[in-house]
Amino acid sequence: MTENTLNDPELDKLHRYWQACNYLAAGMIYLRDNPLLHEPLKAEHIKQRLLGHWGSSPGLSFIYVHINRLINKYALNSIFLAGPGHGAPGILAPVYLESTYSEIYPNKGENLEGLLHFFKEFSFPGGIGSHCTPETPGSIHEGGELGYSISHAFGAAFDNPDLLVAVTIGDGEAETAALATSWHSNKFLNPLRDGAVLPILHLNGYKINNPSLLSRISHQELEQLFLGYGWEPHFVEGSDPQEMHVKMAAILESCVLKIRAIQQQARNSGVATRPRWPMLVLRSPKGWTGPQQVDGHKVEGFWRAHQVPLNAVRENPAHLAQLETWLRSYHPETLFDTQGRLLPELKALAPKGEHRMSANPHANGGRLRKALRLPDFQDYQAAVGKPGNSSAENTRPLGKFLRDIMLANPSNFRLFGPDETSSNKLDDVYQVSKKTWLADYLPEDCDGGELAVDGRVMEMLSEHTLEGWLEGYLLTGRHGFFSTYEAFVHVIDSMFNQHAKWLAMAKQVPWRAAVSSLNLLITSTVWRQDHNGFTHQDPGFLDLVVNKSPAVTRIYLPPDVNTLLAISAHCLQSTDYINVIVCDKQKHLQYLDMDAAIKHCSKGIGIWEWASNDTGVEPDVVLASAGDIPTKEALAAVTILREHFPELKIRFVNVVDLYKLSPASEHPHGLSDRDFDSLFTLDKPILFNFHGYPWLIHRLAYRRTNHKNLHVRGYKEKGSINTPLELAIQNEIDRFSLVIDTIDRIPNLRVAGAHVKQKMRDMQIDCRNYAYKHGVDLPDADNWVWPE
Amino acid sequence: MTENTLNDPELDKLHRYWQACNYLAAGMIYLRDNPLLHEPLKAEHIKQRLLGHWGSSPGLSFIYVHINRLINKYALNSIFLAGPGHGAPGILAPVYLESTYSEIYPNKGENLEGLLHFFKEFSFPGGIGSHCTPETPGSIHEGGELGYSISHAFGAAFDNPDLLVAVTIGDGEAETAALATSWHSNKFLNPLRDGAVLPILHLNGYKINNPSLLSRISHQELEQLFLGYGWEPHFVEGSDPQEMHVKMAAILESCVLKIRAIQQQARNSGVATRPRWPMLVLRSPKGWTGPQQVDGHKVEGFWRAHQVPLNAVRENPAHLAQLETWLRSYHPETLFDTQGRLLPELKALAPKGEHRMSANPHANGGRLRKALRLPDFQDYQAAVGKPGNSSAENTRPLGKFLRDIMLANPSNFRLFGPDETSSNKLDDVYQVSKKTWLADYLPEDCDGGELAVDGRVMEMLSEHTLEGWLEGYLLTGRHGFFSTYEAFVHVIDSMFNQHAKWLAMAKQVPWRAAVSSLNLLITSTVWRQDHNGFTHQDPGFLDLVVNKSPAVTRIYLPPDVNTLLAISAHCLQSTDYINVIVCDKQKHLQYLDMDAAIKHCSKGIGIWEWASNDTGVEPDVVLASAGDIPTKEALAAVTILREHFPELKIRFVNVVDLYKLSPASEHPHGLSDRDFDSLFTLDKPILFNFHGYPWLIHRLAYRRTNHKNLHVRGYKEKGSINTPLELAIQNEIDRFSLVIDTIDRIPNLRVAGAHVKQKMRDMQIDCRNYAYKHGVDLPDADNWVWPE
Repeated sequence: MTENTLNDPELDKLHRYWQACNYLAAGMIYLRDNPLLHEPLKAEHIKQRLLGHWGSSPGLSFIYVHINRLINKYALNSIFLAGPGHGAPGILAPVYLESTYSEIYPNKGENLEGLLHFFKEFSFPGGIGSHCTPETPGSIHEGGELGYSISHAFGAAFDNPDLLVAVTIGDGEAETAALATSWHSNKFLNPLRDGAVLPILHLNGYKINNPSLLSRISHQELEQLFLGYGWEPHFVEGSDPQEMHVKMAAILESCVLKIRAIQQQARNSGVATRPRWPMLVLRSPKGWTGPQQVDGHKVEGFWRAHQVPLNAVRENPAHLAQLETWLRSYHPETLFDTQGRLLPELKALAPKGEHRMSANPHANGGRLRKALRLPDFQDYQAAVGKPGNSSAENTRPLGKFLRDIMLANPSNFRLFGPDETSSNKLDDVYQVSKKTWLADYLPEDCDGGELAVDGRVMEMLSEHTLEGWLEGYLLTGRHGFFSTYEAFVHVIDSMFNQHAKWLAMAKQVPWRAAVSSLNLLITSTVWRQDHNGFTHQDPGFLDLVVNKSPAVTRIYLPPDVNTLLAISAHCLQSTDYINVIVCDKQKHLQYLDMDAAIKHCSKGIGIWEWASNDTGVEPDVVLASAGDIPTKEALAAVTILREHFPELKIRFVNVVDLYKLSPASEHPHGLSDRDFDSLFTLDKPILFNFHGYPWLIHRLAYRRTNHKNLHVRGYKEKGSINTPLELAIQNEIDRFSLVIDTIDRIPNLRVAGAHVKQKMRDMQIDCRNYAYKHGVDLPDADNWVWPE
Repeated sequence: MTENTLNDPELDKLHRYWQACNYLAAGMIYLRDNPLLHEPLKAEHIKQRLLGHWGSSPGLSFIYVHINRLINKYALNSIFLAGPGHGAPGILAPVYLESTYSEIYPNKGENLEGLLHFFKEFSFPGGIGSHCTPETPGSIHEGGELGYSISHAFGAAFDNPDLLVAVTIGDGEAETAALATSWHSNKFLNPLRDGAVLPILHLNGYKINNPSLLSRISHQELEQLFLGYGWEPHFVEGSDPQEMHVKMAAILESCVLKIRAIQQQARNSGVATRPRWPMLVLRSPKGWTGPQQVDGHKVEGFWRAHQVPLNAVRENPAHLAQLETWLRSYHPETLFDTQGRLLPELKALAPKGEHRMSANPHANGGRLRKALRLPDFQDYQAAVGKPGNSSAENTRPLGKFLRDIMLANPSNFRLFGPDETSSNKLDDVYQVSKKTWLADYLPEDCDGGELAVDGRVMEMLSEHTLEGWLEGYLLTGRHGFFSTYEAFVHVIDSMFNQHAKWLAMAKQVPWRAAVSSLNLLITSTVWRQDHNGFTHQDPGFLDLVVNKSPAVTRIYLPPDVNTLLAISAHCLQSTDYINVIVCDKQKHLQYLDMDAAIKHCSKGIGIWEWASNDTGVEPDVVLASAGDIPTKEALAAVTILREHFPELKIRFVNVVDLYKLSPASEHPHGLSDRDFDSLFTLDKPILFNFHGYPWLIHRLAYRRTNHKNLHVRGYKEKGSINTPLELAIQNEIDRFSLVIDTIDRIPNLRVAGAHVKQKMRDMQIDCRNYAYKHGVDLPDADNWVWPE
């Protein structure tokens, strides 16, 4: 260890730099005046509301400054992710000290006035957020909702061979579900072609009010846990700053050297195996260097240090005095000059230019993003003659398209899916790239394993980890596509929410360059669960999506192969959105040839003339659909209606881009009222057959002129083991229900329609009986095709 | 090990019993006739569609029958949770063999005809589900969505000192986030008063298409992982059935004896510490005893065994022959008599009566449920004089109520919250019960740690684990209450979905007794995030809730202390619902004294006469609110409107029970149209100030007569660091926006109202400016009280 030990002057400067960080972190929480304590501290210098998290800030800065030392020593290319993002003062401080903050936000200059702005605006309305928000230079991880730091870090490291991603995990965060499984990401990192992730578990012992689990198990258990997760744990434990600097410098350096040795060995040999990557456990007191006790209660090293250690400073002179003593313990006068500038001897410790973690372009990934090279999606088209007469698995041609995208973009595109790429019929991609796998191999893998150390298809049975990887990959300037089961996309609802919030904020940050959209294919949908039953039926993700900012959300329901291809190609080229594509993987009727699909998808909504008979006249009824099975059933209803009521003028509308239904004032894709009215009429009944829960359509369209005549059918939470048609009947999206509905809505069909309604009810019973007898749908219904 | 080794005859019978299970599991997947192969197998005996998961079934049965052995030997009180619930054939088979299935479902009797029904109906429309659904005797865990087996198991074990919960975790499930952190549940189990959980990790090596991670790390890593998680791992590994029976019998027995020794030691000494509980790793081939190869490809012991190992049996005579060979390899003629009854010598192996895991009353918890002893909630009331004139923290009195519930129900009630019970102001509960903590203690815990080995407040920073524990606790007949941050309740969206589905199905299963409702207090809400910012603002959980069956979902938004108490008391006594209560923890205005609160809550919606001036006449406008901050702002708007337009007749409606807005046909709580119309008028403008995303109100009320005049304000995804009023202004739920809105909706106010509108806009600017200058709300606005 001796050779890595800091010599005293270097240690002293590093410590003082850290003290400057701690001073700034405390200042951000407390001060609205007298920023460098040039005069005695008074109550009026204190903010009216004391907000912020002191607890993990000193530890975060401690880690940051020690990484800085190694960046300088080894010219590292490194970014930093703060799992406990609410410890933002501990990140903002070193970011400010290395000048990035002032460069980007000139009113927070490196002088007294700038410092005061920096303090005052922290956690203040209209000011600086209290997490590592998109406004924070160097951040790709806000840390507002806990659990995703490691998966984000791995996403950043994939295909960035020179990047070292340092990620601090709070011991609170370490208890979350998402974090607990993400340690296994090391089985998916290839030392030959990927960068490295250095996790630093910050055991500061406490959460808001509780000890953390990992700080209250034995050292042996903790070590075993990380050995078991496949890491090589290193420990830096203690509270004396001088001793801790010496330990941290040595051990962190040995970790970095170990990482380099692993990489060199792999790269020199050309052989990628799973090494034991180092990770570090930093056990340091919560609220380190802050008040030890307040009013007779332990604070430093206890949960009371979590937020604001001294609360009553404006009212209680003893607290004010204690705060002043605390702040002066950092000797700000020995750190900053009288103008508020960090002393040059300390400033010298900050990395320069893009070596600063706060200025590393990987953390503003749009700057590095290269447009995806896309083959022509039309090359993958399904041949469609007469609409509604041929069948195909909707996702299979997309798999071929993704395969060729993978081929054309060999180092900046990945495909993600929880053990379901094959099940979702995208497995053609394996022809050019296998599933990444750095865990053990067995002989049988050679026959159908599709595993490889250099694959770029990411499969793990954790939607959380996949989503985290993908977000990290995108935020560092790359491209990706995620396919997952519809019901279980709810597993990552909260991650979707948080990523949507990140994007919405990031779009308002002028210096952030646009990143690739997050493309989410929702497949294995509610209508084709066959034997999986009720637990696998949930199309409600879309209800979440529409809560998020219209600036970043898009929803598509392509009903067949060619529309899916056109939509996917569009999504893959877009930036700063979350594109949600709903399309089932099973065999479905094909409706549109490629030309028609392109036209239809560019409009996003439109009349299908071939299924309509209202040419030149106002229709009697509009049948509309969104989604594959609902479209088939609605079309089948049209044929029944036409057979029985040849005079009835039916318009058929299909919706691919769901937001077309929104008012134009609420979503950029929303149709104008005029266009909406011209499609849906002013006063005719509309039967809308929808893929999801029916209320969503009302939520989008309730302001439209003809809303009172809009009748929506969709999934109504009815199901168990069902054939497709029988499930449709239960939820009344089937052809027969739609015919009955139509008859009920058109007064002059009521009499003539009575016997048709009865026939429809009989058909429903026949279909159910057949399904209950044979376990499959009535062939006539199942094999239905558009007849004309 | 010798003393535990099975003697040969016992081993032989156990093996044959397991073979009977395997035969039944395969039969369920394949056969629709010739159930015991009394004649040669023909294509017409095979189901038309082959559905089901063979892969994990033999392993599940293997575990089940070995537990049976120990139930008989030690009179264990045990239930079984199958993490891989899609391996239902492996559970249904032993459940049938121990007669429970036939007792409950007489048409599946223990004879040829019953057996045939049992086979035919599996995974068949209207038949037997392909997971461990609520219809499955002995199941409290469906295993449709993966990840919750261990947390459910612990929930079942808490406060059930004599219960042994055996839980099988699939190695696919083991990769999920929720499962990965739930291993830490052992730090919350007290051997003195709780039962035991015996986890059996089933390493069958593969998921749908991929190897499982934990099966592809070294034995040493795997062992270290579980040692690190705090368990004592035992391994049963192999593929030869005879050897495996011997190993399993010995090791499983040693685990059970170890558990008993731990419990005895704790119970004899009266000292509870955290032991190293045993857990078991069963490494056995996927699709064990099934076809080794099919068409030249490895099946047994590979992912191809996941579902149906032989697919083309109806068309391909070779497959049919292979199936027959496979089925006959179990020698059904040596297991069942010609009538289809299990031979008596094998039947003797099944436990009897309630010792059968499928008939254990804990797995039908409603049978054991005792009503909660509730103190009178009125004893905790806030003294409220003039409405809207005093303030209180809404959740604090609830904390006292919960404290006394805890006292009155010392062994069947627990409180759950992710590190937030204090933060959510419920900490009075610690006076009678601390936080359960079996991990290490430090001296400082005595001052504010609130930890105890015998606490019943459950806190861990994993919403998944808490929700899983609570579900397990409720499903085994106990009571609970969960409080959590609003934005992060989305972390468990999918668990909510699945529990709602379980309840909806369970209610239709006649033999399932009602269980206590899952009570979820959503607090720390969107409107009071102050410095937490955008990531902490998300009231969208309710949008998920309304997708689920109206038979099991309830939503309440009590605006103050007394309504919160009344609602909570109601929820705590209810059964088979998920009650979602939204109420912030901060100080808020108090509106209703206890009498008024009870009246208001029993109606769920009503006119607040004291805030209305439309007595005896039709109002000009209805102002309505749901939620604490929206109610305050709406009332403040009323006072401004009255001041400026004293002639304006305003009706003020407050909604506590959100489903009152639904049509009566869609939710049992829905108001009749007549009642709705009499509250909201037929044609007057309604300004509805809502807690959540505004569209939800439209979704509930779009069919109401006066919907066209319904204008809803709510959270519109606008926010960052905000004061409460400033956040309200940004989202237009503030008093000023409501006044402007009202003026805009009432034609004869437009002229007179122009200057008022301007004044409102000026006030908004003043409020914003004040907040941006001082970091707090304008005192006049912040301290606003109802003036009359």
